Amino acid sequence: MPSYQAPLRDYQFVLQDLLGIYQRNELAGFDQFDHELVDAILQGVAQFTREIMLPLNQTGDQQGCSLQDGKVVTPSGFKAAYQQYVESGWGTLICDPEFGGQGLPEVVGIFATEMQTATNMAFAMYPGLTHGAYSAIHAHGSDRLKQKYLNKLVSGEWTGTMNLTESHAGTDLALLRTKAVPVEEGYFAITGEKIFISSGDHDLADNIVHLVLARLPDAPAGVKGISLFAVPKFMVNEDGSLGAANHLAAASLEHKMGIHGNATCVMTFDGAIGELVGAPHQGLRAMFTMMNQARLGVGVQGLGVSEIAYQNALAYAQDRLQGRALGGTRYPQQAADPLLVHGDVRRMLLAQKAFNEGARALIGQQALWLDEAERHSEPQQRQGAAKLAALFTPVVKGFVTDQGFKACVDAQQVFGGHGYIHEWGMEQFVRDSRIAMIYEGTNGVQALDLLGRKILADNGAALEAWSTEVKQLLQAHSGDGSVGPILQGLAGAASELQRATAYLAERAGSTPDLLGAASMPYLQLMGITALAWMWSRMAITAQAKLDDGSTDEAFYRNKLQTAQFFMDYWAVQAVSLRQQVARASGGIVEFDDAAF
Amino acid sequence: MPSYQAPLRDYQFVLQDLLGIYQRNELAGFDQFDHELVDAILQGVAQFTREIMLPLNQTGDQQGCSLQDGKVVTPSGFKAAYQQYVESGWGTLICDPEFGGQGLPEVVGIFATEMQTATNMAFAMYPGLTHGAYSAIHAHGSDRLKQKYLNKLVSGEWTGTMNLTESHAGTDLALLRTKAVPVEEGYFAITGEKIFISSGDHDLADNIVHLVLARLPDAPAGVKGISLFAVPKFMVNEDGSLGAANHLAAASLEHKMGIHGNATCVMTFDGAIGELVGAPHQGLRAMFTMMNQARLGVGVQGLGVSEIAYQNALAYAQDRLQGRALGGTRYPQQAADPLLVHGDVRRMLLAQKAFNEGARALIGQQALWLDEAERHSEPQQRQGAAKLAALFTPVVKGFVTDQGFKACVDAQQVFGGHGYIHEWGMEQFVRDSRIAMIYEGTNGVQALDLLGRKILADNGAALEAWSTEVKQLLQAHSGDGSVGPILQGLAGAASELQRATAYLAERAGSTPDLLGAASMPYLQLMGITALAWMWSRMAITAQAKLDDGSTDEAFYRNKLQTAQFFMDYWAVQAVSLRQQVARASGGIVEFDDAAF
Repeated sequence: MPSYQAPLRDYQFVLQDLLGIYQRNELAGFDQFDHELVDAILQGVAQFTREIMLPLNQTGDQQGCSLQDGKVVTPSGFKAAYQQYVESGWGTLICDPEFGGQGLPEVVGIFATEMQTATNMAFAMYPGLTHGAYSAIHAHGSDRLKQKYLNKLVSGEWTGTMNLTESHAGTDLALLRTKAVPVEEGYFAITGEKIFISSGDHDLADNIVHLVLARLPDAPAGVKGISLFAVPKFMVNEDGSLGAANHLAAASLEHKMGIHGNATCVMTFDGAIGELVGAPHQGLRAMFTMMNQARLGVGVQGLGVSEIAYQNALAYAQDRLQGRALGGTRYPQQAADPLLVHGDVRRMLLAQKAFNEGARALIGQQALWLDEAERHSEPQQRQGAAKLAALFTPVVKGFVTDQGFKACVDAQQVFGGHGYIHEWGMEQFVRDSRIAMIYEGTNGVQALDLLGRKILADNGAALEAWSTEVKQLLQAHSGDGSVGPILQGLAGAASELQRATAYLAERAGSTPDLLGAASMPYLQLMGITALAWMWSRMAITAQAKLDDGSTDEAFYRNKLQTAQFFMDYWAVQAVSLRQQVARASGGIVEFDDAAF
Repeated sequence: MPSYQAPLRDYQFVLQDLLGIYQRNELAGFDQFDHELVDAILQGVAQFTREIMLPLNQTGDQQGCSLQDGKVVTPSGFKAAYQQYVESGWGTLICDPEFGGQGLPEVVGIFATEMQTATNMAFAMYPGLTHGAYSAIHAHGSDRLKQKYLNKLVSGEWTGTMNLTESHAGTDLALLRTKAVPVEEGYFAITGEKIFISSGDHDLADNIVHLVLARLPDAPAGVKGISLFAVPKFMVNEDGSLGAANHLAAASLEHKMGIHGNATCVMTFDGAIGELVGAPHQGLRAMFTMMNQARLGVGVQGLGVSEIAYQNALAYAQDRLQGRALGGTRYPQQAADPLLVHGDVRRMLLAQKAFNEGARALIGQQALWLDEAERHSEPQQRQGAAKLAALFTPVVKGFVTDQGFKACVDAQQVFGGHGYIHEWGMEQFVRDSRIAMIYEGTNGVQALDLLGRKILADNGAALEAWSTEVKQLLQAHSGDGSVGPILQGLAGAASELQRATAYLAERAGSTPDLLGAASMPYLQLMGITALAWMWSRMAITAQAKLDDGSTDEAFYRNKLQTAQFFMDYWAVQAVSLRQQVARASGGIVEFDDAAF
């Protein structure tokens, strides 16, 4: 069975050294915690995930969920573990204290999510979806809805789902057909079929609150006619007790490549009773205000699974004896040297390590921007942070899940044939992490969102704000003897990104289709530049710690070494990506449809 | 269920236009067939694979194999299909006529293999392994062994396996422990356990010939003490009839990520009786003389699965309506435009198409080199072809399976959420194709083989011979108005490859570990350059056809367009790969072991 050590030391580094969250008292509520409290909470989650969630990951994959007499049964152990999850209050961390939450910031909560995802992605999706439903009702629901649902969703006694997709309407929600008809004051009857509904039904909780996109009778066509409804599995009485079963059911379970422990359902709504969340016809807006947070949550899945895959690949490479080092036998007393002596094994492991730590830093930064957008005392700062968070949302979702999946494939490769069989658990990481590239907007949608909405529609303003930060960093530190060579990698990638952006900005108006064709290499280029930025900042931070005579010298030297590797291996990919952007026009856009 | 149209037109293009195999009568036996015969054979295989093998691919995946009372049962339909396979003689195509084969060249047989792999990789592995056993005995077995086994292996009435791996000895065969003890003249008792044995046991054929690596009592330690034995499941009487069961068994089935229809067994040999294949202690040599062919066979798996994945992704992209083209609605009469209008979908599909057609051409060239090495009338030509085939073996195996897997991941991505569920079959292609990167020498081993054995140990002679061909091509055609711009892509990639080689040649002596660290980006760089070379040749060929007024103008224009896309999207990756090679030294080799 795979093992897992939560990267607690790295969390400390990101939260304290890099982001300095304990000195951010201009953010509302940040004075309510200190590093001891946060360390204790993350330590608690680390223990829970390692001891309770991890042991259920492989069995959950093997057993999967089943539909028995119209009810979904989760894999053995899930129900008891979920009970413990609720009792421990792990779902409450970043929720509103008014409804039983602990009010911690995203930047802390996101690392709790990383550990949950790493140890059991399928299990972690139950509370993950619940948090999505909580957020939607919290942001857009009426007081009545909030009173009815939020305390139970925060505690985890009830769970939540998101019902968007229909069989003919995936990315294109304009095609939705599910109908909502008013039945009495404030209530609607929902009818339709939804597919791919994560956590759609299960035996973990007493009730499930389905958030369902549907059309009202007077709805305009397209996405401007979609409303959002809260539709409970069991009706809720005035006193909060559960009433009759609603007219909805899990019609079947999807048979998936991975995340078998999560019940992905086809849901049928047959006049199910629900209430509006937000205004009529404003359902997509309600959904999309949660998008930054939800996509960050998927991005962290890419990181979490990649992290546990790396840890196990490293352990295997240290343990497994095969062959001898090219430069001469290292361990003559053993029958062979460990895999770790082999250059290509080292390459794969370092590629994973540099990606994971870089992605973790970026995810921390992204979560902090979300916190700033919500909690900063200055409106202008809130606005600036919101713009940066919006800009990086598709990067965190698209780049981190793409590369996290590839990192899992590399980790599996370290195991050779043993990576291909269930026993070692590595192939499960590949299968599980694959979905993160697809759901919550495919990565192609992320790429287009980045280039179209977040950069060009904004006339590059948000990108410019970030680029200015990058330039200032380079100006301030490029001359430093210790980190200067590292920052050259950032300078190179940033320059390629700038060229690619200028190229596209010039042509977007006359050749709109070019944006789609160039969007994925552009997203990857932006992701690599973003990680080069985080690695530059980490290197500067680590060097400052060393200069200050830190007692944890090995940790900070490790950061410097890994930063250099990132530039040597990852950042050098920027030039080819920029060339792909620059050549996307003729080859892709004008390719004859008949010639595919 | 996925559909499949064998790329018969592309086979004609590669065999006739590009490689000109019907004008190669200096190759022994090439005068025995013409394009009508070859077309008819490939057409026959196309029909068999589409009608018989493809319908069993998903059911084979879902049912898998089972071990019942010590015997392996294959998925329903496999036995009847295999019977038809044998009756149709599809296993005989490239075998020696002396033993019932048809004597066709590799360059024809390899495309029959592509279709088999595309439609049912797990099924195709049964005859695939059989052919490996046939080749080993044919090349190294005594006359007695040949008479005993070859006719039955050629017909497919009996099947074969390769028993190399033990649980502690994967890549490092020096660690093998299986023992062979002489029992009577010419016979040995084999004892040990082997894992990951493809087609290890099954119910398809009357007998199975296991080729087993084991150590004789007087064997020196390490790889120089390994012998190869032919060990039948049932003893074979003098008259060819089957005798008693041998002392061997499938102890268990491996539970794998994919290729569920193939029985991957743990095999136990408990004094099983076998005969030497080749000389004592020369087992690895006997195995490795088949390596070029076996690795080509795995490379074609990377292509085959990628091809069927592409075909289905394209069909889905043409059919599925989601969203509107950025440049304006294309099909106003429909509720939405097809996926194919979206730039990033086009990018993914073109990346697959350009890879598949390029890899197919390279695989054809590689098979032809193997044929030339075997059949050319001039010894010097045989030797030259053998060197090129050895050089490109790790490229075909490592690069084509790596990129073929990635192409399957992209094809799956085109389907969005539907790609993640079993129903559409796309996730199976990802799971199945994943193994090709691991077995028959992991791709890391391929990379090291390329750089260490095939390039540097040879002082670059084979690479130089190929580079000279590339240079001559560039000199002859760079000025052509039509293909000149395409050839610029080849020139760029070849120049990066040359720089990378020179860099490594200079440092290999003083820093041997650098070779491993740089080997994978080098392999990818070589693969991209090789495909750029094939695409340049294809473009030149296509342009010549157009200049000659070919009636199939659309086909040849398509080749030219795709060649340009290859250069714009794939060949531009060369510069970053070369930079990774150039920076592998410090970052990877000298990274502290304790800092991982």
